[in-house]
Amino acid sequence: MWTQRHLLGIESLSSADIDAVLDRAETWHALSRKPEKKASVLRGRTVINLFFEASTRTRTSFEIAGKRLGADVVNVSSSGSSVTKGETLLDTAKNLEAMQADLLVVRHASSGACAFLAERLRAAVVNAGDGAHEHPTQALLDAFTIRRAKGRLDGLVIAICGDIAHSRVARSNAILFGKKGAEVRFCAPKTMMPPHAESLGPTVSVIPRLEDAVRGADVVMMLRIQHERLAGAMMSTTREYSRTFGLGPAMLANAKPDAIVMHPGPINRGVELDPRVADGSRSVILDQVEAGVAVRMAVLDLLLTPPAEG
Amino acid sequence: MWTQRHLLGIESLSSADIDAVLDRAETWHALSRKPEKKASVLRGRTVINLFFEASTRTRTSFEIAGKRLGADVVNVSSSGSSVTKGETLLDTAKNLEAMQADLLVVRHASSGACAFLAERLRAAVVNAGDGAHEHPTQALLDAFTIRRAKGRLDGLVIAICGDIAHSRVARSNAILFGKKGAEVRFCAPKTMMPPHAESLGPTVSVIPRLEDAVRGADVVMMLRIQHERLAGAMMSTTREYSRTFGLGPAMLANAKPDAIVMHPGPINRGVELDPRVADGSRSVILDQVEAGVAVRMAVLDLLLTPPAEG
Amino acid sequence: MWTQRHLLGIESLSSADIDAVLDRAETWHALSRKPEKKASVLRGRTVINLFFEASTRTRTSFEIAGKRLGADVVNVSSSGSSVTKGETLLDTAKNLEAMQADLLVVRHASSGACAFLAERLRAAVVNAGDGAHEHPTQALLDAFTIRRAKGRLDGLVIAICGDIAHSRVARSNAILFGKKGAEVRFCAPKTMMPPHAESLGPTVSVIPRLEDAVRGADVVMMLRIQHERLAGAMMSTTREYSRTFGLGPAMLANAKPDAIVMHPGPINRGVELDPRVADGSRSVILDQVEAGVAVRMAVLDLLLTPPAEG
Repeated sequence: MWTQRHLLGIESLSSADIDAVLDRAETWHALSRKPEKKASVLRGRTVINLFFEASTRTRTSFEIAGKRLGADVVNVSSSGSSVTKGETLLDTAKNLEAMQADLLVVRHASSGACAFLAERLRAAVVNAGDGAHEHPTQALLDAFTIRRAKGRLDGLVIAICGDIAHSRVARSNAILFGKKGAEVRFCAPKTMMPPHAESLGPTVSVIPRLEDAVRGADVVMMLRIQHERLAGAMMSTTREYSRTFGLGPAMLANAKPDAIVMHPGPINRGVELDPRVADGSRSVILDQVEAGVAVRMAVLDLLLTPPAEG
Repeated sequence: MWTQRHLLGIESLSSADIDAVLDRAETWHALSRKPEKKASVLRGRTVINLFFEASTRTRTSFEIAGKRLGADVVNVSSSGSSVTKGETLLDTAKNLEAMQADLLVVRHASSGACAFLAERLRAAVVNAGDGAHEHPTQALLDAFTIRRAKGRLDGLVIAICGDIAHSRVARSNAILFGKKGAEVRFCAPKTMMPPHAESLGPTVSVIPRLEDAVRGADVVMMLRIQHERLAGAMMSTTREYSRTFGLGPAMLANAKPDAIVMHPGPINRGVELDPRVADGSRSVILDQVEAGVAVRMAVLDLLLTPPAEG
Repeated sequence: MWTQRHLLGIESLSSADIDAVLDRAETWHALSRKPEKKASVLRGRTVINLFFEASTRTRTSFEIAGKRLGADVVNVSSSGSSVTKGETLLDTAKNLEAMQADLLVVRHASSGACAFLAERLRAAVVNAGDGAHEHPTQALLDAFTIRRAKGRLDGLVIAICGDIAHSRVARSNAILFGKKGAEVRFCAPKTMMPPHAESLGPTVSVIPRLEDAVRGADVVMMLRIQHERLAGAMMSTTREYSRTFGLGPAMLANAKPDAIVMHPGPINRGVELDPRVADGSRSVILDQVEAGVAVRMAVLDLLLTPPAEG
């Protein structure tokens, strides 16, 4: 049963909320594979993508999700917007709400920006990434992808490798996997591992060597490495990163034989992920992208459709 | 009765034209408050937002208005457009018309750009702001907001304060309020008051001190101040401007007890408007934003729907 | 009969494929002249405009075409996209395909980019201009325009004048006109004529002087001249270019009395084309723009609608 007015983070969701999204997403996943992939459940609803950081993939995924459900979708990005005229975040959002927007999908560089808005708006707010805080639809699409591949989440061993410290994806996933009883292994160069990383989720352990983290894993999730952060990790080249923390076929052989490989994209081929693995039979990276639209349709639908009387 | 083929300015509208927009806007204002806010009166019509100046608020408002009426809406902005390839304004517009655009919403830095196009196109043209000339939908949404708050326009005292000289909003409003029998008081630092300001509308008077302008007013409309123009007004800081020409609670106390406060946005909080007033019970600033969609729906509807046989 | 899964270039089309597009375009050309110009044949299909080079005219034309047929259309441009994060072209396209995009309209600076994608995607690919290679929908809309004006293509004499060397429009047109039995005369300054220009199409001849190229022509197609290439042609001014290779009324008098004048736009008025000709009675330049939407509707329709059982 879905009980939320906003989707601000995985932190605030119950296990039943998560199931509600994943179950509803199955419906929209199936619809999206049909030639005529169109519903009208959100006909006449106004959904606004309010993006203060550039993002093709996430914005496009939400835009397609909204349109496929019949909503009117409008994109507002910070370039060329009132934001550059010094308007406050809240005033910008209040203005869009006054245009009778039903839901704002918000990406912002500051942690907590979405919660700040949600407390002050009647419109629903969906967090599409706020600073290094949370990126809940990414965690939900990852969970959807794993559930389809493995039939369940509980009891799985999930290695998450890369720049944990700066990753809202890692954070949201660690929280979700904890709620669903999956074991999370964080692996990263020291400078990319946050202090007290174990506190990020109830089932998190920190494992310094990639080989140990991958050993026996059901899921290996590689995070995108930002070139500009390599220097901080005292690595002079992406090659050095790749040799120590990149996932190639030999390293993957340490995981379970049926382990799947995930990545939130965009991939740095040859840095954190060997192309043979990215494009290999164990990769579910494009399944994640497909799941992204289905999960976002489910979130829009659950937030905007009044529940049927019981 | 609406008699226009284009909406180029308030100047060319009759009092009955203005009423036609405001009356029709009531319908769309009511629709926009419903969960399923969607009509199909413009199904199959093509509306193009042709913006040569950045504007989130106005572009978004027109985009939502068009979509809510069922039109196909396409955004064209000057960045990344043929305009940068040296194409003339007229050629750009003629091209969009040749794609069977029914209506162009045009924002341009040059006064008269919209009238220039309207004389040369079959498509309807709506002025979304042309230089320092006119911004007619802003004046119409302001009139709609006042009419809803006060029940009428005639006989009201309306103070308009700020950078009158550079404001197409002030200009369009002064003309409209004149046609509707409201008294307009302009108040601004000397460098921001145009010569012969009284000629901007038939009911305009110029009042140098804010306190005098606000005294007994039914409506106090504050204009956005551009930081870069403060130097010209021989003010070194926004604080100095705020002290002399900003609207705070004490200054507002000079107006009528039931006076309303307006601002076309985006607000410079603490400069022309004290946050306590902007967010106070007398502020109708967000009502203006809501009215903006309704009024733009009315304009698109009136220009694109053939009148019923009488 | 249309037999293609993609539209990559005119090169790969049969004469019957070309006819299929032109015939279908007649239907959509007629629909687009109605007040309610809307079909639902692509309802529930997702069309993505993936543009790595700026283009208002082509992107807008495809966007209108898709929307007019009822598709969900999403724009993705390289600015603000994952592309700037170093993602490969193929990964970007595969991601959009994973979102169940049915068709990608692709503009890219590299010749062959569209064919490269088409070999690797299930989604249909439409080339909207790839480097100096092909721009097939431009050639199809030119053919549509000529066929409507002249009733046929075969046997016509078509002069194409300007920067042939860098023009994908010239290339695609030369191939199409060759397949349809029209004679093509290329005319350009030496530095703007590619080596072996005759090999660009089976009916191409190279004619150095504009007067000779235009003499007796049924169609005179002027190409846009890029200012930055004039130096390479050893011309110091656009005036010099205009005098030698520009089309004015006197020069046009050499063509057949009923010759038509074409230009792919955007026009450099006074450089390659005299305004009296551009706006004259023999100009079909805006007919080309109108045809653009109809032809693109036809291409989307043919690629996305399964053929009826025979």
